Amino acid sequence: MLAATVARFMPPQESAHERLRAYLHQTRLLGSISSTLYYDQNTVMPAEGAPWRGEQLALLAGQLHERQTCDAYADLLAEAEAELAVAEQVASQTGAMPQQRRNLLLLREELDRERCVDPNLVSRLAKAQARGYACWQEARSSSEFERFAPALQELIQLRREQAAQLAAGAARGGADGAGAGRSCWETLAQRFEPGISKARLQELFDPLRRRLPELLAMVAERRGAPPPPWELAEAQQERLCHDLLIGWGWDGARCQRSRSPHPFSCTLGPGDFRITTRVVKGLPLSSFLATAHEWGHSLYEQGLPRSGDHWFPWPLGDATSMGVHESQSLFWECRVARSEAFARRWQPRFAEALGSDPWAREGRGSAHGFWRALNPLSPGLNRVEADELSYCLHIVLRWELEIALLEEDLPVAELPVRWNRRMGELLGRIPASDAEGCLQDVHWSEGLFGYFPSYALGHLISAQLAEAMEHEIGSIEQRVATGDEAELRRWLAGRVWPLGRSVDAEELVRQVSGRPLTAAPFLDHLEAKLERLLA
Amino acid sequence: MLAATVARFMPPQESAHERLRAYLHQTRLLGSISSTLYYDQNTVMPAEGAPWRGEQLALLAGQLHERQTCDAYADLLAEAEAELAVAEQVASQTGAMPQQRRNLLLLREELDRERCVDPNLVSRLAKAQARGYACWQEARSSSEFERFAPALQELIQLRREQAAQLAAGAARGGADGAGAGRSCWETLAQRFEPGISKARLQELFDPLRRRLPELLAMVAERRGAPPPPWELAEAQQERLCHDLLIGWGWDGARCQRSRSPHPFSCTLGPGDFRITTRVVKGLPLSSFLATAHEWGHSLYEQGLPRSGDHWFPWPLGDATSMGVHESQSLFWECRVARSEAFARRWQPRFAEALGSDPWAREGRGSAHGFWRALNPLSPGLNRVEADELSYCLHIVLRWELEIALLEEDLPVAELPVRWNRRMGELLGRIPASDAEGCLQDVHWSEGLFGYFPSYALGHLISAQLAEAMEHEIGSIEQRVATGDEAELRRWLAGRVWPLGRSVDAEELVRQVSGRPLTAAPFLDHLEAKLERLLA
Repeated sequence: MLAATVARFMPPQESAHERLRAYLHQTRLLGSISSTLYYDQNTVMPAEGAPWRGEQLALLAGQLHERQTCDAYADLLAEAEAELAVAEQVASQTGAMPQQRRNLLLLREELDRERCVDPNLVSRLAKAQARGYACWQEARSSSEFERFAPALQELIQLRREQAAQLAAGAARGGADGAGAGRSCWETLAQRFEPGISKARLQELFDPLRRRLPELLAMVAERRGAPPPPWELAEAQQERLCHDLLIGWGWDGARCQRSRSPHPFSCTLGPGDFRITTRVVKGLPLSSFLATAHEWGHSLYEQGLPRSGDHWFPWPLGDATSMGVHESQSLFWECRVARSEAFARRWQPRFAEALGSDPWAREGRGSAHGFWRALNPLSPGLNRVEADELSYCLHIVLRWELEIALLEEDLPVAELPVRWNRRMGELLGRIPASDAEGCLQDVHWSEGLFGYFPSYALGHLISAQLAEAMEHEIGSIEQRVATGDEAELRRWLAGRVWPLGRSVDAEELVRQVSGRPLTAAPFLDHLEAKLERLLA
Repeated sequence: MLAATVARFMPPQESAHERLRAYLHQTRLLGSISSTLYYDQNTVMPAEGAPWRGEQLALLAGQLHERQTCDAYADLLAEAEAELAVAEQVASQTGAMPQQRRNLLLLREELDRERCVDPNLVSRLAKAQARGYACWQEARSSSEFERFAPALQELIQLRREQAAQLAAGAARGGADGAGAGRSCWETLAQRFEPGISKARLQELFDPLRRRLPELLAMVAERRGAPPPPWELAEAQQERLCHDLLIGWGWDGARCQRSRSPHPFSCTLGPGDFRITTRVVKGLPLSSFLATAHEWGHSLYEQGLPRSGDHWFPWPLGDATSMGVHESQSLFWECRVARSEAFARRWQPRFAEALGSDPWAREGRGSAHGFWRALNPLSPGLNRVEADELSYCLHIVLRWELEIALLEEDLPVAELPVRWNRRMGELLGRIPASDAEGCLQDVHWSEGLFGYFPSYALGHLISAQLAEAMEHEIGSIEQRVATGDEAELRRWLAGRVWPLGRSVDAEELVRQVSGRPLTAAPFLDHLEAKLERLLA
């Protein structure tokens, strides 16, 4: 009797959809708190703050993991799925609410993935990652691969176990069973590039593997002597970065700029974006190009859909893949800031910043000289410093080695030899030490396998989207020549950013460009650019 | 059978003490995450990040409140108390573990205080604070007190309710029943100044109320024309602040410096301290003196005990009161940076920073002129900008008015008139608008009553500790004259900072100086200083 009375006076129950939204909203709050700590750590935190910061982050990671895997959440998601199924029946057709359907599908995939991994393995992995990172730092500073090898071996073993558990979970019937039949590497790469396969990457990378070394050889013959080293005062670099951003729509009320040891971009809230850069001695264009790059990431984040069933907090408003994210940063860095028109327009500003120092201005006194400075074209040992011409070969190298380690039983001890040999074949350079070679990247120290190809996909996607853009609004170079980059931004804001996670990377490219992703637009762009650059 | 087997192989149960420590550790982690967000918000967060940041902070505040008031925590604390009682019996005497006893006592007081306030009142207060702050901002910008009055009235009413609930809780038998019989204002002030009473403050403030206006009148007669306004380039201010800190033991590996609209100091972890300052146009010494002040706060935080039953996470390692905290910042700002010896030593550096501008150097070309610039001695309408001579009168004014509002039924509408009249009596100045008068401080906008006296206590405590210091290690001026401030720091690090919360503010002063706190050392210091300053 009492229960009935109470029920009668209860407000109408919130829908499962609304409760799920509130739940996800809180998850996002926690995630963004963690990102804020990360940002602080990488910009201003004093060194001795590190151990405590580690504990803070671990506490939040634990809370986040719990929220994302607990039964209460699983029940809530199941309720929302059932509710949507009923609503769709009422609407008499499946797919009547495609956005909600897709949101729930993405959430279901993530939940199943999280829950099919043994918590014991998760904790062993976390420990192995911490150990791996520490060993890698030591090994790199002394260039002794053997100090890292055992930790790497352990990480490989644990990632294999993780992939096996994920594959078994998918076979038991993840959302659509699509995960069944994936190889170890493929399974691990799904986090970064949903739907990716080795066969597809083979198809995309083969033209790069064939053509890029030829282009490198051609360039080596024609590029002439390298320009003399030059330098730009820190305050001048800072001012140029600022001017660049102002011209590209930066708004201090939404985006904060800082310094950090490695440039990055992050989103700390629906109206709170951050980008960082660094000033590198001897690399006077580094902070400028990094600013262009990170601002490209941030523009994408700022342009993701934010209303209705989107961010914050639904997955539909997230970036769809690391490759697409990278395509947005590379567009602004390579297609715009490294373009001839851009060099022509900015050369006077750089000349002014250099002041009257004749030595420093040598070789950059002309627009063409400055364009050459923006595109060094000399293959180096280091991935991070590579330009458009050699970057993808660095990725191909890492991708091949990851598969060899994870799936083809390449002994860890042989990694340095294999690295150096393949580096010679692809880029014509052989590292003098492992620090310059297979120890240069942080990724493997934390067992991050499957991530690298996204960087190369970024180049390919950027080029294919740029081609589509030119098809619709005309020459990018001409827009840049007249300082009309706002038009480029408007196109991306209309055609690319609002897609969020409604489609995967391949489908995004297909929708926007009208055909499947290939390496052709990237190689065409590169060859045309090299022709003019070497003229 | 199975249970018994399991039990046999279980590791020995952790003590309640250890479990409590782990619990408090996690509470500190959460609290420091919240402080990190606050720091970020006040230094670099873009304006549009505010709403989301508010949600993040509210989420953490909720988690913290839950942790600090839930039954599981209450049970754990009770277990630890019982465990300690047994241990003390075994040790055959009460007080055998005085540190643990005091820690548990402080935790018990806080828990009882938190739990005796109706959650409904807590949430009404939070809303009234948000409303109060918003109304106050509007009222201040248009200098219309009536726009703030209703919100202030509501905050007073809610704080009265809160004080009544706290008093009732204390009467029901808080840890030692010490809270019974406190007035409304006294009850609210305990958070900031444990053990404080109106009678005690009357005793301490009466000499200030009598003597300071006389000194102000004497100074007004003798101080002569004010020096012409001057300015110091931002980069020079920055360099001088940096040099000051380097000389005072600042270590970039433990403490980060930033800019913020209002200077503050905060502790984000056991090895992570932050201080901020601001550059104010027309006040060339503002950033420098604020840096001295905030560094004093930070030194205290850095010197608090951090081992054994202390921070992180036990209360014994916390600052013992806001007044003691303020005494540490004021020591470095007023006793050191505003001293004659300091002016003598730093005048050449400031002269150098001013460069060759003869107008700018006028009046500060001599050590005495610079000392006068560090001590303007002209009473203003604004508390924050007041110097040693008039600061405490600003506090007396606010303290009297708080009691009148909370306990003597002063109608809120009469606050401006009463403020202006008393301002005239105490400081000889009458505000032209309420924005310059009773709307200048943020405190009341959030119903923060009971806080102001700590600022004045800081002056009194600083002076009495300085007297004790000179008794033991000789003249402070002489140490400063030779740049030997490290010796002052060592004394504080040996005698004051390690006390943490083992004693309250009054007991700390008694232990260190050998006698109860009075206003005499402060007034003596001030009179001696004025004599020389006006010479």
